[in-house]
Amino acid sequence: MNFVAALSEKASKNISELEENIRQAISDDPFIFEACEPLIRGGKRLRPMLMLLCANAKNSCPNSRTMPLATALELIHTASLVHDDIIDTSKKRRGVETANSKYGAQIAVLIGDYLFAKAFQLVAENNYGAEVQLILSKLVKQLCIGEIMQDRSLFVVPTMSEYYRRINLKTAIFLSSCCRLGAIVAQLDDSEIERLAAYGTSLGLAFQIIDDLLDFCGDEKVTGKPRGGDLKSGVITLPVVRALSTSDEAPALKKIVTSETVTCTDIDAAIKIICATDAVDYCKTRAEAHIESARVNLPASLKISVALALEQIAEFVVDRTR
Amino acid sequence: MNFVAALSEKASKNISELEENIRQAISDDPFIFEACEPLIRGGKRLRPMLMLLCANAKNSCPNSRTMPLATALELIHTASLVHDDIIDTSKKRRGVETANSKYGAQIAVLIGDYLFAKAFQLVAENNYGAEVQLILSKLVKQLCIGEIMQDRSLFVVPTMSEYYRRINLKTAIFLSSCCRLGAIVAQLDDSEIERLAAYGTSLGLAFQIIDDLLDFCGDEKVTGKPRGGDLKSGVITLPVVRALSTSDEAPALKKIVTSETVTCTDIDAAIKIICATDAVDYCKTRAEAHIESARVNLPASLKISVALALEQIAEFVVDRTR
Repeated sequence: MNFVAALSEKASKNISELEENIRQAISDDPFIFEACEPLIRGGKRLRPMLMLLCANAKNSCPNSRTMPLATALELIHTASLVHDDIIDTSKKRRGVETANSKYGAQIAVLIGDYLFAKAFQLVAENNYGAEVQLILSKLVKQLCIGEIMQDRSLFVVPTMSEYYRRINLKTAIFLSSCCRLGAIVAQLDDSEIERLAAYGTSLGLAFQIIDDLLDFCGDEKVTGKPRGGDLKSGVITLPVVRALSTSDEAPALKKIVTSETVTCTDIDAAIKIICATDAVDYCKTRAEAHIESARVNLPASLKISVALALEQIAEFVVDRTR
Repeated sequence: MNFVAALSEKASKNISELEENIRQAISDDPFIFEACEPLIRGGKRLRPMLMLLCANAKNSCPNSRTMPLATALELIHTASLVHDDIIDTSKKRRGVETANSKYGAQIAVLIGDYLFAKAFQLVAENNYGAEVQLILSKLVKQLCIGEIMQDRSLFVVPTMSEYYRRINLKTAIFLSSCCRLGAIVAQLDDSEIERLAAYGTSLGLAFQIIDDLLDFCGDEKVTGKPRGGDLKSGVITLPVVRALSTSDEAPALKKIVTSETVTCTDIDAAIKIICATDAVDYCKTRAEAHIESARVNLPASLKISVALALEQIAEFVVDRTR
């Protein structure tokens, strides 16, 4: 299942238009296009889709008004992934070679910067106003603070509240901002804006918890990322936190996850310990709880088709395999 | 001599206020402050100062209107330096250890991103409008294209037009945008805006030529950067281009500058060959010519004190030692 399947015919058409807008946005320079085109391919487009759905939540909002902002959101997301891959020294993303691996850290840094700048250019060119600019710049800033927090506590077991603070900064604020921006562009009323933003926050928390789970249980061919990547790079996530508090083999697990030099055998052993506990179910249960909050937050005033799509996206987030 | 010496008493006071604004801008998060504070120390503040002078070129513009934008310009400049240092793998900048060397590439990427985002946040918070946002996002984009161009042609001798295209993207557009932004904030008329922007472009070309020269002839203690850094990293600049077209030892020089593995002895030999030619004088002459264009472009309608300061900055740019 793909997000797109959750969408009405009109929304699916929007996605084709979005794809075209994203391609156009990176066509300033031949090398930039060559380098970015593989990076933008195959994304789930969750962020722009949330924004587009919220912008059309009550009345239809013209694509000329929504597309540049939706494109900007995907560019910001892609930029953060490009920089993230430098950080993670990942070799693959979305099944293709990362910019870092293909062109080196130098060019990868600049490609990310270019994509950020291009996103802000699109927003300025289309006169979205200061509030939209502010939400975008703050979300990038908070994303950075979240990533810095993560990078500074590698190989350290987080408390539950530290884990939640990190995934809020890294993911939930971004998804929440996408919903908020859609609602603002559509000039919904304040309580609708806040409820859609709250939907986005809960969706984001669930999304990141499942993402962290897929690092252990995902099928590499489907996720496009090597398994155990978080563990290898020292990012300790909820499944580990849970397993550490319940497993008989917690000391062995702790030794592996807090060690800066581990072998593939260690990683496999850690995954085995984690999967022998209730960590997978526990994380799924938590993610499902957040999805319930997301659903409850949806305002009653939305068009049925949009409410349905947002509910289906929420379901997809917990059921997804990539 | 420092730029500040070229300024009137009012402008010098502005610089103290600017310094305070820059410090405040990085105070969101204790780690960010700790990491960024050394990076923002000791800069020449050329970009915000150009913007402030142009904003006060005819009538006095309130600091509340100019400071956030001036601060944003310095943050963008600092962000680009932080990312540049990842690219150059430099160990020192402005005499202090780089973020890359101190915290690793991972954190350095994020600190740069944070500074970019913070700059856009300041501009959005202060309602400068879409035109200002557009100029800022485009200048960051063009800076990236310039750096990518440079990185993709390392160890390759550029033609004169390739060299100029690169320094325009890397430096001149930035300085020109600073002048343009000041003039826009002050609501000068269109021809004044264009003339100040043209002043900035010429100033920028001269600035980068001298910068490239200082890489060979600068005093490391004054510049804060190791000598021959450009050569070592494969960036071939105007002095080399000139020496290659005039020196008897051009073949030996070409062999060194186009080789990806050189020793310190090679670099010293290259510098010796270059300094035995007229390359230094040639570059200075070119820089002086650009400075003359800069001066000629200054509109006659400016306040005497500002016109004088802009002329003195132009002079400083060619006479500077760092």
